[in-house]
Amino acid sequence: MFKKILIANRGEIALRIIRTSKEMGIKTVAVYSTADKHSLHVYFADEAVCIGPPSPSQSYLNIPNLISAAEITNADAIHPGYGFLSENAYFSSMCRKHGIKFIGAKPNHMIQIGNKILAKKTMKKIGISCLPGFECFFESSYQEVEKISDKIGYPIIIKSVFGGGGKGIRSVLDKNDLKNSWEEARKEAWACFRNKNMYIEKLILNPRHIEIQIIGDKYGKIFHLSERDCSIQRKNQKLVEEAPSPFLTPFLRKKMGKEAIKAAEFLHYEGIGTIEFLVDQNKNFYFMEMNPRIQVEHAITEEITGLDLIQEQIFLAYGKKLSIKKNFYPKMYSLECRINAEEPDKNFRPVPGKITQMHLPGGKGVRIDTHIYAGYRVPHYYDSMIAKVITTAKSRKETIEKMRRSLDEFVIEGIKTTIPLVKKLMQNNDFLEGNYNTNFLDNLDSDFKL
Amino acid sequence: MFKKILIANRGEIALRIIRTSKEMGIKTVAVYSTADKHSLHVYFADEAVCIGPPSPSQSYLNIPNLISAAEITNADAIHPGYGFLSENAYFSSMCRKHGIKFIGAKPNHMIQIGNKILAKKTMKKIGISCLPGFECFFESSYQEVEKISDKIGYPIIIKSVFGGGGKGIRSVLDKNDLKNSWEEARKEAWACFRNKNMYIEKLILNPRHIEIQIIGDKYGKIFHLSERDCSIQRKNQKLVEEAPSPFLTPFLRKKMGKEAIKAAEFLHYEGIGTIEFLVDQNKNFYFMEMNPRIQVEHAITEEITGLDLIQEQIFLAYGKKLSIKKNFYPKMYSLECRINAEEPDKNFRPVPGKITQMHLPGGKGVRIDTHIYAGYRVPHYYDSMIAKVITTAKSRKETIEKMRRSLDEFVIEGIKTTIPLVKKLMQNNDFLEGNYNTNFLDNLDSDFKL
Repeated sequence: MFKKILIANRGEIALRIIRTSKEMGIKTVAVYSTADKHSLHVYFADEAVCIGPPSPSQSYLNIPNLISAAEITNADAIHPGYGFLSENAYFSSMCRKHGIKFIGAKPNHMIQIGNKILAKKTMKKIGISCLPGFECFFESSYQEVEKISDKIGYPIIIKSVFGGGGKGIRSVLDKNDLKNSWEEARKEAWACFRNKNMYIEKLILNPRHIEIQIIGDKYGKIFHLSERDCSIQRKNQKLVEEAPSPFLTPFLRKKMGKEAIKAAEFLHYEGIGTIEFLVDQNKNFYFMEMNPRIQVEHAITEEITGLDLIQEQIFLAYGKKLSIKKNFYPKMYSLECRINAEEPDKNFRPVPGKITQMHLPGGKGVRIDTHIYAGYRVPHYYDSMIAKVITTAKSRKETIEKMRRSLDEFVIEGIKTTIPLVKKLMQNNDFLEGNYNTNFLDNLDSDFKL
Repeated sequence: MFKKILIANRGEIALRIIRTSKEMGIKTVAVYSTADKHSLHVYFADEAVCIGPPSPSQSYLNIPNLISAAEITNADAIHPGYGFLSENAYFSSMCRKHGIKFIGAKPNHMIQIGNKILAKKTMKKIGISCLPGFECFFESSYQEVEKISDKIGYPIIIKSVFGGGGKGIRSVLDKNDLKNSWEEARKEAWACFRNKNMYIEKLILNPRHIEIQIIGDKYGKIFHLSERDCSIQRKNQKLVEEAPSPFLTPFLRKKMGKEAIKAAEFLHYEGIGTIEFLVDQNKNFYFMEMNPRIQVEHAITEEITGLDLIQEQIFLAYGKKLSIKKNFYPKMYSLECRINAEEPDKNFRPVPGKITQMHLPGGKGVRIDTHIYAGYRVPHYYDSMIAKVITTAKSRKETIEKMRRSLDEFVIEGIKTTIPLVKKLMQNNDFLEGNYNTNFLDNLDSDFKL
């Protein structure tokens, strides 16, 4: 087994990886920017190396510094977590070049699925259901865009090929809006990603975002671990996730699982990954994208399966065979609320600052993954997520009740958080009935301001 | 269902009961002594009533005050937790007299099993394996004691009929020690319990303390939920518990479970309870006592069964039928370390005081049940237990590794605790091999001083 893993990340996911590594008897190296000097991942790792100033490009995205840190500390593997370099094919191949195992997808898989157009074309070719459209426009004329849009039929959505985080996206409900939206989206894409490559596809109104967790070894065995419903989003950012989805029937679960496995098998995928689907109100599902990494919401899959997905990643990267023997169908329910350091009444602006007091919920069926502590200062350089509250029980109702009382117990003083928002959501009748979609929270926004 | 439950207890168990009640949509009433004004159970309950000064006899044991508190707040049920009045038949019948449901054993069961001699006689009568001896001596002559001891054969143990907490007990390895030990034990029994009634039975050298959790409804259905091994003790106080026991074979588990059910069935037992056995090195087991209440270590049974035992107690007290349909055999492993506010290097003297800083462990498979927080002052009037760390995984090895890293993460500043002791234990080879007995820790004491 690996002797020492360097974790090329920060926050709760760095701590999450340290925890499993420790339990496996593997030494850990934390890396940190100067802004994260007092982070828990720094305290809890066996060794810690400062890799640069606060700016991500100079620290957590700084490949030479990360490779040097691994070499100095004699780490034989790197876990990238999520975000940062977790989907960076160049980083993955640089690790390989330096004889360091990258615990994640192979570079060719990252390239194949990192480009959303390429991924969709591949999936369509092998018969996975995709949305009509996804033509790629490089320097195309507006006339061409119009022609394609007419062919797909409105509503359509315009997206940046290299987009993310809700940027470079415009929904077009009506042909009259096409020109404006097209220009705005391109402008934004250029501003954000220095790339004007766009694509257009059919817009699903009020879809569910449902993703299938898959797991595969290098010997060709691939299974799915059932789904996560991530439809509770704020401006395309997931906020609450649950497994299983209250929207899926057993038949649909099986069918989507089968499709996800078909996709992963075609790629000869190794490790863990997620196939994201949009599901319309008639329960038709369409491939959206594939994520070749651990996800924030992996914990709910762990809770319903009993598996430790970080441990699985480490085992699979080391070349072990899969320990499970079949697809997984859920018997338990698990729910995750992300807690962000944001001001709900100021349009969810991130609010860094010092946590003066903190009390974590506890007891049966409650799991907390967090890197914060009383006295910790939330820096403004990074993601605003500061904790994940995960509850698990035998029914959806009990899981939600457990979440309610956990959120009631959760005390964070000194900064504002989204706890009041998710508390309200746990009382919302539509949510309680499982009746929601990706626009649900944005539509409710005014109710959810506090 | 009950509308409002008064919790006649304090500390972690009060909080534990509040949590489940909340999740069930039942209102809660906390009671507190003036020393517990700033306790978490007071903050987290819907209502709180002060029932007296710090001394337990004037507050948590004060039956009129408790009944009044329930009547004032309109509570329709009382949960006694463990300790205090949880095994008090008079309290249970007073609740009934006032139309308040007592969530626990019926008064007649408490009487039948509260007297250790009576319980053993009953068990022997129905064929449950008991230790040779247990003659009851009231004002017997020493000659009689000697005769009985000869008949049983040394080593023997002298115990107070109404004893507890390791008082009024003497082990006698050799006839030469009998007279002294007899007199010391009686003197201590009188000093502690104002009662000189003693009994003598065969002493098992280095036994395991293994208990079977049973659960029964008023319709006569009784099942067992497998065992807990509570052999890691300090001076007859449990410190670490695990389920399943590494000492039991599947055959022995089945056999002990069957005997426990036989005992409970004979009593027509309702609710949850524990049958405690001593198991000798040859795997012979002997009935020790029965506990008609929730136990500190119930959490590990919850973790391996998925049941919420407090919820079960509430359902059963309300008259519901058992939801489970058969005996439970474990597939997971769970381990509990009790954390006490004690000074390991001063013979584990309780050390009350103010907690200045606190950080709780978290992540997958880790459960924390505690009532402490940063800023909380541990009072000196009550039990020194301040937290329970419970870890659960698929193998005993992983469960212990998870416990190690959890204890590493657990920070309590301002007071001394037994965390260093249990940390050391988690590294002890005999413990790792499951090779321990009730004397194990006391024999190791010198190694475990820090």
